[in-house]
Amino acid sequence: MGYLNAKAVILLSGGVDSATTLALAYAQGFELYALTFRYGQRHDAEVRAAEGVARAVGAVQHVVQTIDLRAFGGSALTDAIEVPKSDSVEQIGGGIPVTYVPARNTIFLAFALGYAEVIGSTDIFIGVNAVDYSGYPDCRPEFIVAFQRLADVATKAGVSGASIKVHAPLISMSKAEIIREGMRLGVDFSLTHSCYDPMPEGLACGHCDSCLLRRQGFRDAGLVDPIPYAMGGS
Amino acid sequence: MGYLNAKAVILLSGGVDSATTLALAYAQGFELYALTFRYGQRHDAEVRAAEGVARAVGAVQHVVQTIDLRAFGGSALTDAIEVPKSDSVEQIGGGIPVTYVPARNTIFLAFALGYAEVIGSTDIFIGVNAVDYSGYPDCRPEFIVAFQRLADVATKAGVSGASIKVHAPLISMSKAEIIREGMRLGVDFSLTHSCYDPMPEGLACGHCDSCLLRRQGFRDAGLVDPIPYAMGGS
Repeated sequence: MGYLNAKAVILLSGGVDSATTLALAYAQGFELYALTFRYGQRHDAEVRAAEGVARAVGAVQHVVQTIDLRAFGGSALTDAIEVPKSDSVEQIGGGIPVTYVPARNTIFLAFALGYAEVIGSTDIFIGVNAVDYSGYPDCRPEFIVAFQRLADVATKAGVSGASIKVHAPLISMSKAEIIREGMRLGVDFSLTHSCYDPMPEGLACGHCDSCLLRRQGFRDAGLVDPIPYAMGGS
Repeated sequence: MGYLNAKAVILLSGGVDSATTLALAYAQGFELYALTFRYGQRHDAEVRAAEGVARAVGAVQHVVQTIDLRAFGGSALTDAIEVPKSDSVEQIGGGIPVTYVPARNTIFLAFALGYAEVIGSTDIFIGVNAVDYSGYPDCRPEFIVAFQRLADVATKAGVSGASIKVHAPLISMSKAEIIREGMRLGVDFSLTHSCYDPMPEGLACGHCDSCLLRRQGFRDAGLVDPIPYAMGGS
C-alpha cells in the first residue's frame, strides 16, 4: 500500500486498463507520475486520452515520451498493415495478431524504470492483463516476473539492496472486472480511448480487437460504454 | 557463431567497447544492424563517431533512435551537473558516479529487442564491461543474465520456444584486452569517441572517467591511442 508522499510511475496509454490502474494507484495513496508514449502510432487519440485521464485524476506530472518504433517497423499499429476487424470477440483470430508491437512493453517498462529511479519512486504500475487481451507475449505474468527480476539488478536501488516494485494489478482480471473496478474507483471512462484504428475525428471503429474486447467487457459488466462508436455502437 | 545471412543487432555508442563488439559480430559472420541513441547527451560527438564506425565496418543498416532521457533528468551526461574530472584512474571516485544515466542500458536493450524481432534477428550484441568500467549497475553480468531471461519471455520468439540471445562478449575483459582484441580485428580506433565532456570542436577532455579508462587501457595494452586530447594527451 502507498503512504504519504510515496511516488508511483504509472504507464498510461489512455485506455480502460491503464485508466483503472492509475485510479488504483491513486486509491493506494501514491503521488501519481504518469508516463505515456507517442511511439509512431497511426493516430494521436491515445495520447490525447491519456492527457485527459491524467488531468482528471490529478497526476503530479505527466511525461509524454516520443519514440520512433516505426524506424524498426513490424506492426499494424505503426505500419501500413491493415488492422483486423470483426464483429465479435469470438471472431478474433488465434495466435499473436499483427497489431503486436515488438518489445513495446519492455521498452515502456524500461523508460518507467528510469523515470522511477530519477524521481525516487519505488513503485511502477502497468495495466497489462492476461485474460481478455490480444495474446501479446509481453502481457503475460511471466513477462512481469522477468521484468521485476531485471529491475532488481538494473538500478542503483538494486545495488543497494532496495528495489523498484513492478505492480500489474489487473493481470488476472477479466475486462468486465476491470471495468467494474474502474467504475467503483470513479474512473471517467468517457475520457478513455481503446480503438486501434479510429476515424479521422477520433471516433472508435467498434470492430478492431481492442474495441471488441472493450465493448464485450462493458456488456459483461452490465454497464454502458460512454464512448461513441463509428459503426454500430456498443 | 554466425552463419550466412544471420542478422545481429549491435548497440553502438561509438566508443572503444562497442566498436570492438561490432567487429566481433562481423568476425563471427553476422550481417550487422547497428543501433545508436541520441538520448539527450550534452554533445553529439558519440553519434557522429557511431556513424563513422558503422560505415567503416559495412553495417547493412544503422538506426539512430532519438529519445529524451532529459525529460526525467538525473545524470551528469544529460543534465547541467558537472562531469567529474581527475588525473588518473586511481582518482576515480568510488560508488556509482553522477554520470550514471538511470536505466540506460535497460532502455537500449529493450529497443534492440524490438529491432531484432522486427528484422528476424536472434542475436543482440552489447559492449558492456564489468572490469574497467564506471560502476554502473546495468553493466554487470547479473544485469545481462536478467535481461536474457526477460528476452526469453518478452517476444513472439520466446512464445514459440525460440529465443533472442544477448551477447556481452567484453563483459569480463579488461580495457587493455578489449583494445588489443579490437586492434587484432582491425578496428580503426581513430573513429571512436569515449569522452563524456568533449570540447565544442569534439576534442576529448582527457580527464573524465571515460577518457581516463581509455587512456590507461591503451597504455596497458602498450598501444598508442590514435585520438587527440584537449588537455595533455595519452
